[in-house]
Amino acid sequence: MAEIKQKTRLLNSIVGFIITTLLILVAGYQFKDVLSFTEYLPEISITITVVIVFFLSLLGLYIAIKISRKTVRIIKDYSGRLERILEITSDLRNEVHSDVLLNKIMDYALSITRSEAGSILLADKDNEDKLTFKVVSGEKASDLIGTSVEKGKGITGLVYETGEPIRIHDAYKNKRFNPEIDERTGFKTYSLLCVPLKTKRGVMGVLELLNKKDGHPYRDRDEEIIVYLAEQAAISIISAKFVEDQRNYEIHLTEILLEAIDFQVPEKKGHARRVAKYSNMIAKGLNMTEEEQKRLYFACLLHDVGFLKLKADEIFRKEEFQKHPVIGYEMIKQINFYADIAPVVLHHHERYDGYGYPSQLKGEDIPLEARIVAIAEAFDSMVGENTYRVPVSFNEAKEELQRHSGSQFDPELTEIFLENIAPEHVK
Amino acid sequence: MAEIKQKTRLLNSIVGFIITTLLILVAGYQFKDVLSFTEYLPEISITITVVIVFFLSLLGLYIAIKISRKTVRIIKDYSGRLERILEITSDLRNEVHSDVLLNKIMDYALSITRSEAGSILLADKDNEDKLTFKVVSGEKASDLIGTSVEKGKGITGLVYETGEPIRIHDAYKNKRFNPEIDERTGFKTYSLLCVPLKTKRGVMGVLELLNKKDGHPYRDRDEEIIVYLAEQAAISIISAKFVEDQRNYEIHLTEILLEAIDFQVPEKKGHARRVAKYSNMIAKGLNMTEEEQKRLYFACLLHDVGFLKLKADEIFRKEEFQKHPVIGYEMIKQINFYADIAPVVLHHHERYDGYGYPSQLKGEDIPLEARIVAIAEAFDSMVGENTYRVPVSFNEAKEELQRHSGSQFDPELTEIFLENIAPEHVK
Repeated sequence: MAEIKQKTRLLNSIVGFIITTLLILVAGYQFKDVLSFTEYLPEISITITVVIVFFLSLLGLYIAIKISRKTVRIIKDYSGRLERILEITSDLRNEVHSDVLLNKIMDYALSITRSEAGSILLADKDNEDKLTFKVVSGEKASDLIGTSVEKGKGITGLVYETGEPIRIHDAYKNKRFNPEIDERTGFKTYSLLCVPLKTKRGVMGVLELLNKKDGHPYRDRDEEIIVYLAEQAAISIISAKFVEDQRNYEIHLTEILLEAIDFQVPEKKGHARRVAKYSNMIAKGLNMTEEEQKRLYFACLLHDVGFLKLKADEIFRKEEFQKHPVIGYEMIKQINFYADIAPVVLHHHERYDGYGYPSQLKGEDIPLEARIVAIAEAFDSMVGENTYRVPVSFNEAKEELQRHSGSQFDPELTEIFLENIAPEHVK
Repeated sequence: MAEIKQKTRLLNSIVGFIITTLLILVAGYQFKDVLSFTEYLPEISITITVVIVFFLSLLGLYIAIKISRKTVRIIKDYSGRLERILEITSDLRNEVHSDVLLNKIMDYALSITRSEAGSILLADKDNEDKLTFKVVSGEKASDLIGTSVEKGKGITGLVYETGEPIRIHDAYKNKRFNPEIDERTGFKTYSLLCVPLKTKRGVMGVLELLNKKDGHPYRDRDEEIIVYLAEQAAISIISAKFVEDQRNYEIHLTEILLEAIDFQVPEKKGHARRVAKYSNMIAKGLNMTEEEQKRLYFACLLHDVGFLKLKADEIFRKEEFQKHPVIGYEMIKQINFYADIAPVVLHHHERYDGYGYPSQLKGEDIPLEARIVAIAEAFDSMVGENTYRVPVSFNEAKEELQRHSGSQFDPELTEIFLENIAPEHVK
């Protein structure tokens, strides 16, 4: 920190100067008869000497304390901001939604530098020459979101290309400043701090801050701290993207598996999605958390995945059919994400009275989610359009569930389902 | 920071004391005739007064400077360590391998606190009562890795349960300290700092540091900084786990798709994996990066995924068969992770001379990876054991590729393949 070095040097000079003066004064007074140089000093009385020594001492102390307090304040402010960056980092790391994340980064950057306005621009994946405004903060600026600027143009372009921060005090006096954006928004830029968003893989965009609220230029400290923020922000942007891509991957891969099952077993087309819908009614009735509901949702979509390894023309032969929970379980049991789902796939054909398969589990020994799927699946098999049996009416299906509540199905869960299901849920 | 407040208070007292003494001395000398209390002061000569004033001033200055320098040093040290934590955070965030990550956390914690030894214990997923040693640093300690301690026992157990750090100077005088581990390793613990590894979701384990090298107890500053490190470390451990789970997910889901294809089209069993193997030979011949090789690998595994949506008994009818690149492309084109793979799936049946399908692309217009897959696939179709044609010999297959090099296949890539393929590659 350059500021600290400067303060230390100033302190040393002043203290040195005061001590020298004191030494000369005291020496001049004490040894005026032996020291020859004292004759060049003005003749001063003892009283004045004592008073001068006293006030110089006080002044020295005062300056020393003043400067070191200032130094301490600057470093405390700096380490306080570093602490803040660490807190912010933790917060950013816990944010997995890209949009929320970018807005948080913007807000933190504005508040930490006390800036009037700012924006985040990211490199456009589809258009290699453009940087696109992802977040814009400040008056009349929201129209900018989604618009682009050229990578080679203005301060943002330069920061993007060089990967080095730029700080400018009087923007309109600087040739590199491109006033185009100001013209579009009606905003007037005075001071500016623009830093790259970069990781080891390269620069992905820039973070730009405009007009420090106190009217001062952006300082060393602002730049240092925003460079730290930008570094953590850049990694968080990549992480959030990865989490989103993973979610997208899981959804589409599940979709591919479902389509393959629907294609191989057209008699049960759409069955998994309807089981997911019915199961969710019970989940809500049980006040399951979002996380638990999501897990149950994927368990429902995948409960028949074993069909993919059964011959299409043999699926409905009883001994073949009864293999699908075990086959499905074997297919997904090694997937860490599905550690909780695999047992649901395995046990969704158990019966509450213990006469199901493959493990003849009974009552509460059957995983809760497997007991839910059993009810939802039975209901859909009865009323479903594409079923391999002759469909029964909505009310007949309800009565059938009621009749087997306590034997085939968990009575409590059956009750919740019957309370919540309505004809309009069955399309 | 308590230390800073203490220093500031000390400085204020000393400076106050010195100024008061100076004031009394000067007042006593200057106004001895009017001030009544001066009679209680010992009679002192002017010379002595000046000398005392001088030395007291110097002493005041010296102490003021000394203390403020110390304060500045402490805060600089602290902010230096915060900066270090931010650097470390960036490094940890870029590490996706759990093992490497945990070792890095250990090394950083040891070096930042200058400790002799340390360990990281994580909650055991399969055994709810245990904390397992994941990393152990220090003499004779490596045997501990993989062993467990009870969650309720000793300092680690307490920190895990309360989620609060514990600092101890003389371990053997502390009742809560459990000497069992020392007995097992022969290590002697003197001082100890143990902090929880926790995120918003809860405590996942603890980080324990033993014996500060300078023999001092662990200080406030050590604890503060290690709490920051532990916080960032905990999030990194979860992130690394997520990345590993994602990799595990991708591998197993691809496996499920491959098994389903192999099951539905037994005539081509194992084809995708062999195509991946042959393609990789060309990739290496082209000096592709690890990342590019990985992408090509998954492209090969998925190149026939479209078969999942063709009727098993119609797959080998020409007009049905020719649909599979487009169907496969439609299946995966919306997956972000596969943005680069989808075109390979779409174009792997194009011909170099433009007479392929579905888009009749020609020469270099065909994606490089699709041209590679075309060669690998043709070769496997000729020599493969489970092929639907009569297999040809290794040399005949090579000659056939050579014959169609430049018409059906990219001549350069064909050459690379023919240079690298050997009979032992074909099992």
